[in-house]
Amino acid sequence: MHPQSIHSCFTSFRTQAPLVHNITNFVAMSTAANVLLAAGASPAMVHAQTEAPEFVRLSHALTINIGTLSPDWLDSMLTTAQVAHEQNIPWVLDPVAVGATAYRLQSCERLLAFKPDVIRGNASEILALAGMSSQSRGPDSGDTVEAAKFAAEALTEHAKVVVVTGEVDWVTDGTQQWSVHHGVPMMTRVTAIGCALTALIGGFIGSNRDNLTGAVISALCYYGQAGELADKAAKGPGSFYVEFLDALYHLDADQVSNNAKVTII
Amino acid sequence: MHPQSIHSCFTSFRTQAPLVHNITNFVAMSTAANVLLAAGASPAMVHAQTEAPEFVRLSHALTINIGTLSPDWLDSMLTTAQVAHEQNIPWVLDPVAVGATAYRLQSCERLLAFKPDVIRGNASEILALAGMSSQSRGPDSGDTVEAAKFAAEALTEHAKVVVVTGEVDWVTDGTQQWSVHHGVPMMTRVTAIGCALTALIGGFIGSNRDNLTGAVISALCYYGQAGELADKAAKGPGSFYVEFLDALYHLDADQVSNNAKVTII
Amino acid sequence: MHPQSIHSCFTSFRTQAPLVHNITNFVAMSTAANVLLAAGASPAMVHAQTEAPEFVRLSHALTINIGTLSPDWLDSMLTTAQVAHEQNIPWVLDPVAVGATAYRLQSCERLLAFKPDVIRGNASEILALAGMSSQSRGPDSGDTVEAAKFAAEALTEHAKVVVVTGEVDWVTDGTQQWSVHHGVPMMTRVTAIGCALTALIGGFIGSNRDNLTGAVISALCYYGQAGELADKAAKGPGSFYVEFLDALYHLDADQVSNNAKVTII
Repeated sequence: MHPQSIHSCFTSFRTQAPLVHNITNFVAMSTAANVLLAAGASPAMVHAQTEAPEFVRLSHALTINIGTLSPDWLDSMLTTAQVAHEQNIPWVLDPVAVGATAYRLQSCERLLAFKPDVIRGNASEILALAGMSSQSRGPDSGDTVEAAKFAAEALTEHAKVVVVTGEVDWVTDGTQQWSVHHGVPMMTRVTAIGCALTALIGGFIGSNRDNLTGAVISALCYYGQAGELADKAAKGPGSFYVEFLDALYHLDADQVSNNAKVTII
Repeated sequence: MHPQSIHSCFTSFRTQAPLVHNITNFVAMSTAANVLLAAGASPAMVHAQTEAPEFVRLSHALTINIGTLSPDWLDSMLTTAQVAHEQNIPWVLDPVAVGATAYRLQSCERLLAFKPDVIRGNASEILALAGMSSQSRGPDSGDTVEAAKFAAEALTEHAKVVVVTGEVDWVTDGTQQWSVHHGVPMMTRVTAIGCALTALIGGFIGSNRDNLTGAVISALCYYGQAGELADKAAKGPGSFYVEFLDALYHLDADQVSNNAKVTII
Repeated sequence: MHPQSIHSCFTSFRTQAPLVHNITNFVAMSTAANVLLAAGASPAMVHAQTEAPEFVRLSHALTINIGTLSPDWLDSMLTTAQVAHEQNIPWVLDPVAVGATAYRLQSCERLLAFKPDVIRGNASEILALAGMSSQSRGPDSGDTVEAAKFAAEALTEHAKVVVVTGEVDWVTDGTQQWSVHHGVPMMTRVTAIGCALTALIGGFIGSNRDNLTGAVISALCYYGQAGELADKAAKGPGSFYVEFLDALYHLDADQVSNNAKVTII
C-alpha cells in the first residue's frame, strides 16, 4: 500500500464527509457515532424495518453489527442489506461474538447471502464465521490473528475484503494480503472500540468505492495511530477514550499516510 | 428577555430539580441523562407502553425524541403524549431527521395531534416538519436557521413555542421572536448534544410552567454558555464533552443571566 | 470483614477476568461495559430470548437490571434467570425504580422466584421491593439507607445477600450485617454509576462463588474507593467519570484491602 493511496483515501473521506447508516448494537451506538463525528463523517442510526430499507438509499455506506441481536432487528438487517447490495451501496458486516450462540451463526450466514463488501472481526469471530473452531467464550477474542488467516481467506468467497483485527491487523481480498501494524492494548479496555472501527470502515469505503482495500487499510492506519497518540496522553481507559476522540479529530492526511505501517505479504 | 427572567427560570430549575421523563433514542440516552444530572435535574428513561403512560403522571415534564423510531415505541410515544397533554404535563417534541423517511414524517404528524408545548429541531427538521423542502440528507442540518423561520412560525399552530437551533438559535411563540447567540461549532461534533438539549428544555419547562418561552430561552443560554466554556478548555470533541458536563454543573443563575445574549425581534 | 478476605476476593476477580452476562438498560449498557473492562472483567450484553438463555451458560455470572423494562425483555430476563438458577450461575437483580410503576413491581416479583444471589438497590428501591412505603418519585432514592434496613432484612428471604447503596452502603445476608463507608456524592451525578456497580458485583460473585458476601463487600470497597480517588482529581461530573474509570483500572488488591472501611454490625 503506497502512502499516496492512503493519503488519497483519507482526503476523499474528509472531503465527502460520508453519511454512514449503522444498524449496530446498543452498547456501541454512542461510541460509533462519536468516532464518526470526530473523524469527520455523518453518522445515522436507523434500525426499524419500517424505514431502514428506505434510509439506506440516502447513505454512502451501511454497517451491520450483531452485538445485541434480536429477531426483529435481524429482519431489518436482512432487508436493509439486500437493498444495499442491490443498489451497490457498500456495506460492512461485524459478526460480534458469532461463535457464542447458534442464533448468531445462523443470522450471520443469512446476512452473508447479501455479499458484504467488507467483513471485520477479531480472530475468534473470523474463525467462527468461517465454520472453524475458536477458543473464544464471549465477545473478546481467544485466538491469535495468525490462527485466523486461513479462515479470513475462506471468507473472501462471501466478501470482497476481510479484516481480522488484533495486535497486528490482517487484511485480505482473496488475492493479496496486508498486515497493518498500529494500535495499542488499551483499545481492548474501552467498550465498542472495535464496533466503532467497523462504523469508520463504513465511512471510508463509502467515500472510496473504487478502492475498497485502500479504504479499509487507510481506516485501520488512521484508527490505530489515533490509539497510539491517545495512549501516550492517557492515564487509563477513561482518559484514553477522551484522548482517542481528540486524536481522531486532529489527525490529517499527511500524518496518517506518512506514518502508516503497512506490509504487503 | 430581561436577565431577571432568565435568573428566575434558572433558579426555579435548580431548586425544583425536576423529574424529566424521556422517551428518546438509543444513541442519546446516556448523554441526555448525563446532561440532566450535571445540570441538576432527575432524568428517567421509560419507554414501554406497559408503564410509560403511568410514569409520566409522576413527572414534571416529558420529552419525545424520534431518533431511533420503531412501531412499538411510537405506540408508546403516542399514548404517553396523550396523557401528558390531558394532564397538563408540559412536553417537548424533537423530530430527529423527520425529513429522511416517510415513516418519520407520518409519525411526527400523529404526535403533533397531542399539542407539544415545545418543538425543538435543527433548520432542516423544522422545514421538513412544516412540509417545506429541506436540503438535509440525514440527521445533520443542510439548511440555515434563516431559511427555517417561516416554517417555525407555521408550526406554532401545533406548539406553544418552536425552537430552531443552529449557529444562532431562533425561538418563536407565534407572536414574538427571539434569537439566542450562544454555542460553538464543536457542539455538532459530539453525538446527541442536540437531543440532550431537548431533555434539558424539558427540565426547564417542567420547572417553569407559567413562563414557557422564558424557560426555553434560559435553557438555550445556559446550554450555549456551557458550550463556550467547554470550547475554551477542550482540545477536541472527546475533551469537549467532558468539559461541557463540568461547565453545566458549575454555571449558576448569575453567570447564565448576566452573560445571556438574547435579542428580541 | 478481614482485609485478607477482601484481598483474596479482589485477586480472584482480577485473575479470573470473569465473563459477566448483563441484561441491563439502554442508558447503562455502555457505562456498565466500560466499568467491567476498566476493572478487568469481560462484559457481554445479550438480551434476546433466542440466545440469552444459551449464552448465560457460558458466563461466570448474570446481572439483570430493569431500568428500561419492556414485555419482550422481561420474558427473556425470566427465562435467563431460571437457567442461571438451575445451573448454579450466580446472578444479581437490580430493581431500578421498582416503586415507580405497578409493572416494575410485578416484574420484580416474578424475577424473585428464581432466587437472585444478590439484590442491589438504593433505599427507595429496597423498600418498594419489600412492599414497604417509599418516598421516591423516580430512579433516584428519596429515602435513607437507615430506613431501608428492615426491608433489606426481609428480602433475604429471596436472596442470599441484599445490598442497599447510599451514603453508607448496607449489606446483609439475613444473619450478619455490614456497613461499607466509601463513595462520594458525585457518584449520583453521573448516570448509570449504580447500574454499573451491579455489573461489577456480578463480576465479583462470578469469581468468588464460595464467598458471596466477601465478594459483594469487596466490590463495594473497590468501587467506592475509585469514586474517592476520582473525586479528588475531578472538576465536575464529566471529568469524574473519566477519572473514575482510570481509578478502577489502577487500583490493586493491596490498596483496596488496606483502605477498606467496613464495619461488622
